[in-house]
Amino acid sequence: MQVVKTISELRSARRNLPAAVGMVPTMGFLHAGHLSLVRAARRDCASVIVSIFVNPTQFAPHEDLDAYPRNTARDLELLAAEGAHLIWIPDAEEMYPENFQTWVEVVEVTRPLEGLYRPIHFRGVTTVVAKLFNAATPHQAYFGQKDAQQAAVIQQMVRDLNFGVEIKVCPTVREPDGLAFSSRNAYLDPEERRAAAILFKALSNAQIAFNKGERSADLLREIMKTALNSEPLANPQYVSCSNPDTLLELTGQINGCALLTMAVFFGKTRLIDNMILEA
Amino acid sequence: MQVVKTISELRSARRNLPAAVGMVPTMGFLHAGHLSLVRAARRDCASVIVSIFVNPTQFAPHEDLDAYPRNTARDLELLAAEGAHLIWIPDAEEMYPENFQTWVEVVEVTRPLEGLYRPIHFRGVTTVVAKLFNAATPHQAYFGQKDAQQAAVIQQMVRDLNFGVEIKVCPTVREPDGLAFSSRNAYLDPEERRAAAILFKALSNAQIAFNKGERSADLLREIMKTALNSEPLANPQYVSCSNPDTLLELTGQINGCALLTMAVFFGKTRLIDNMILEA
Repeated sequence: MQVVKTISELRSARRNLPAAVGMVPTMGFLHAGHLSLVRAARRDCASVIVSIFVNPTQFAPHEDLDAYPRNTARDLELLAAEGAHLIWIPDAEEMYPENFQTWVEVVEVTRPLEGLYRPIHFRGVTTVVAKLFNAATPHQAYFGQKDAQQAAVIQQMVRDLNFGVEIKVCPTVREPDGLAFSSRNAYLDPEERRAAAILFKALSNAQIAFNKGERSADLLREIMKTALNSEPLANPQYVSCSNPDTLLELTGQINGCALLTMAVFFGKTRLIDNMILEA
Repeated sequence: MQVVKTISELRSARRNLPAAVGMVPTMGFLHAGHLSLVRAARRDCASVIVSIFVNPTQFAPHEDLDAYPRNTARDLELLAAEGAHLIWIPDAEEMYPENFQTWVEVVEVTRPLEGLYRPIHFRGVTTVVAKLFNAATPHQAYFGQKDAQQAAVIQQMVRDLNFGVEIKVCPTVREPDGLAFSSRNAYLDPEERRAAAILFKALSNAQIAFNKGERSADLLREIMKTALNSEPLANPQYVSCSNPDTLLELTGQINGCALLTMAVFFGKTRLIDNMILEA
């Protein structure tokens, strides 16, 4: 396993990697969700690149950029154990040099859900992912379904800008109580951690109702809200039942699939989760 | 010489091209300026891709998209004679399918000069060039100095987004009377065509003064305006003496290099030209 820092080191190392090359872009502090992406890339590809970069441009000034958990030594141990081939840990100074002034923006699918509450977030995500793809030129790139809107936004960007990268979206990995793995779970105190299982419970309650035939988008949202409201430590920011392609809120009866998503605060910690309802 | 239309045909043909691959993005109706870019690419690269695409997103509604001159049969003859290897002529429907919603925007260097008068122009240019680069994955791409701001904008985009493409900017090619070759010269009637030589005359007058030691940006602008005002058919939109890197207007004494640029109407036809003053 080779570890590189600069873009020019990355390009040199990339040239020696056998095809196909899979890439797993991460912000580090790796958990079982990330490792499942590395495993999927290992299964599909001859070579696996993992990038570790806490991307400043996807955080608003009031968000948790400085607090974002980091543990590169542990990340490298985990990645070596998974058999990743090339680890790229760029500096913010090289990714965003003085005079940086170019942005990639996906317009429509970034607007609802996370976009309403994090207005500059996806512009930062698409810009850095375009940079990662251009620098590493992978054949395939792996993202988690946990960040459902991010996956949709990146797929839209890849289609619209003709990136030669196939996007693979892998299932959310969950703790035994259903909490989706997230680096931000590290912020939770023990009481909040226990309470955070309510996200999966709320999604599951709505899924059970859907599987029993419930098709009212309003009612499915109500089921999720009721579950979240049963947990005193949970402070929901939004609860959504949307079209999985456009991410626009569904009204009336669901005709086909739907995407359930939510953002919930536990103290200062903001968690998101989602579930796809398949007709 | 192979001619392809769809992105998937392009990708297949691209795979069989020997490296290095040079690309010349054009809007067709080729002239000696374009052909000098093809010749430069032939000199540097084993394979040369030329794209012909009148990109709708870089034209404002009131601009000349529909009138823009086209002659694909003649373009293909000229390109065959120059030894280009692969010609890509995409459809607007494939480049901008329904639901297209992603834009590449360079912020600062797009603002002055052309950006003031054509506010959506460079967003269209950078978006389509990003698409062309991603689809064709050239090692080198060739642009004309005639579109000085476009060249600066594309170089900024390539740096900021880490495209693995080296940008080559080739000298402006001129008619015997100094008029820069441009597809839009085809709009000029014989009187306007004769009058249009005033752009080069105005630039040359300023350059002569600079070479004699004149360093006042105001005075160099005045020299250009005086020349343009001597031609009754010329209707200047802007006349600029700017920093060649930032394209911001220079004031006071010039310290180093400068970029002279202008946009001038002849009837409805808008021509641009420029010259770099080297200290």
